Amino acid sequence: MTLDNILEEIKNAENILILTHESPDGDAIGSSLAMNLALKQIGKNPDVIIRDFPRTFMFLPGSKDVKEEASKDNYDLIIALDCADLKRLVGKEYVEKTNKVINIDHHGSNVMYGDINFINPVAPACCEILVGMLEYFDISINIEIGTCILAGIITDTGGFKYSSVTAETFEFTAELLRKGVNVSDIYTKVLETRTKGNFELLRRSMDRLELLEDGKVAFTYITKKDEEEVNAEPGDHEGIVENGRSIEGVKVSIFIRQKDEENSYKVSMRSNGSVNVSDICYIFGGGGHPNAAGALVQGNVNEVKEKLLKEVRKVI
Amino acid sequence: MTLDNILEEIKNAENILILTHESPDGDAIGSSLAMNLALKQIGKNPDVIIRDFPRTFMFLPGSKDVKEEASKDNYDLIIALDCADLKRLVGKEYVEKTNKVINIDHHGSNVMYGDINFINPVAPACCEILVGMLEYFDISINIEIGTCILAGIITDTGGFKYSSVTAETFEFTAELLRKGVNVSDIYTKVLETRTKGNFELLRRSMDRLELLEDGKVAFTYITKKDEEEVNAEPGDHEGIVENGRSIEGVKVSIFIRQKDEENSYKVSMRSNGSVNVSDICYIFGGGGHPNAAGALVQGNVNEVKEKLLKEVRKVI
Repeated sequence: MTLDNILEEIKNAENILILTHESPDGDAIGSSLAMNLALKQIGKNPDVIIRDFPRTFMFLPGSKDVKEEASKDNYDLIIALDCADLKRLVGKEYVEKTNKVINIDHHGSNVMYGDINFINPVAPACCEILVGMLEYFDISINIEIGTCILAGIITDTGGFKYSSVTAETFEFTAELLRKGVNVSDIYTKVLETRTKGNFELLRRSMDRLELLEDGKVAFTYITKKDEEEVNAEPGDHEGIVENGRSIEGVKVSIFIRQKDEENSYKVSMRSNGSVNVSDICYIFGGGGHPNAAGALVQGNVNEVKEKLLKEVRKVI
Repeated sequence: MTLDNILEEIKNAENILILTHESPDGDAIGSSLAMNLALKQIGKNPDVIIRDFPRTFMFLPGSKDVKEEASKDNYDLIIALDCADLKRLVGKEYVEKTNKVINIDHHGSNVMYGDINFINPVAPACCEILVGMLEYFDISINIEIGTCILAGIITDTGGFKYSSVTAETFEFTAELLRKGVNVSDIYTKVLETRTKGNFELLRRSMDRLELLEDGKVAFTYITKKDEEEVNAEPGDHEGIVENGRSIEGVKVSIFIRQKDEENSYKVSMRSNGSVNVSDICYIFGGGGHPNAAGALVQGNVNEVKEKLLKEVRKVI
């Protein structure tokens, strides 16, 4: 069984490198930190590399252990978490130098780049995969590990909201609450505390939000200039695309954000149910989940908008 | 024990009138509909009066049974739910005509106006009180009753977010999910679907939002003219005050909404933790919970704002 193979590799390794995807969100960070604490608990020597760590998640146990670069030349094992593709793996330069890669993820689009791949596309979060995995490994989910895991689950379920949420999600949360974990505090820190930059970006994005195609599509954007003017930090654009999705009648919410290069926009799409936005983003070289996906598209605001709408119109 | 007394009164009654508070929210509606279905299950003949029923909650089982006026002249028993004060009870005119009133609520400010009062200020929602009560009465919480109860819990915990949420809340939700209740669907309908009117009011309120007192106070407002211009429906102002509370550093969020009378504003206040906004609203003749309260204050926007800020400044 894959879980036994993973456990064997972990047992045989001493120095383990934990990696996750670029633009890390709560599930990427939560699963990396939880794995880090779990490996320490069983006497291993792990390193975690995460770049552009959002301030929002600094409260998580073990976040101070995170590095931008590895501290060693060689590792016995790499564990990649919540990352569907090697291209998006931060620290992928260490993959060539390391014999074994374990790839643990919940993206259906995962390309199986590991020597061992443990992919559960039904899990609402990579962190939820870790719950069962750590239990199977007999590693106790203490308050610290539980806090990291819950942060990931809350992030990727939109606060217990998405249809991916399971009875196990709620049971696990009840258990953590009984152990003394302040669920409400984690929830608020992860999802409900807007930095001033985030608030200002949201305010601008709402001002510009257009309802198109008979109200079935919400579209808005943020430029580099906006981000500079409000002193935006990494992660300050979070929540903007979900805001569009929440409007009655909207089937697809599109939010585009200018990248460092003038004529390039990072696209985020969300759908309510029927439309598969992962398929649409795939056309532009991106991907994700059926209800939440992204891509990088060239052009100015209007060009990118028209390119996307052309594809969206075909499926709504 | 009070629960036994309540059960005895219900057993002795045939025609039962279910009432709740004005401007009904998900907990008021969810608990009323759940009680209605539960009483029918045990062969009683209940009526539910709710006025200004928001369209958001029309999906709840039994919502079509709701009346604006009672169908009978006399009832054997009134059950008032989620209502702290007779003044706010819609249908209070029937109280005088009825021998017994059972008052079931979770507001600490409840003034105990019932012949039997069952108040649990620690419960996150009136609906959560019903879970234990119906179990004690041996009334099965089927999918329909469970859906109504969950709608109330999701409303009053802000989607499992507030610190009032308990391990029991999560366990109950897990149980409903296992029974086949679509938790995500209820969540989305209750909290995540913004009517266009709600979106437009939110957009205006965000545009006007001011951060005062070194960013510790968020203030915004909506006028009658706004509501007319966006064709606002009952409930379309929901979420505006929470939006202000979510900004980093904000201790008190104030949202005021013009009433039908020109110079009168309905005040909603939310606090993050330490400040007791119920105490502040009490000064103006209102009340509520320590972290969520309301009042009615006379004046124009600036006058009301200054009256409130004067009191808020004393405690932040």
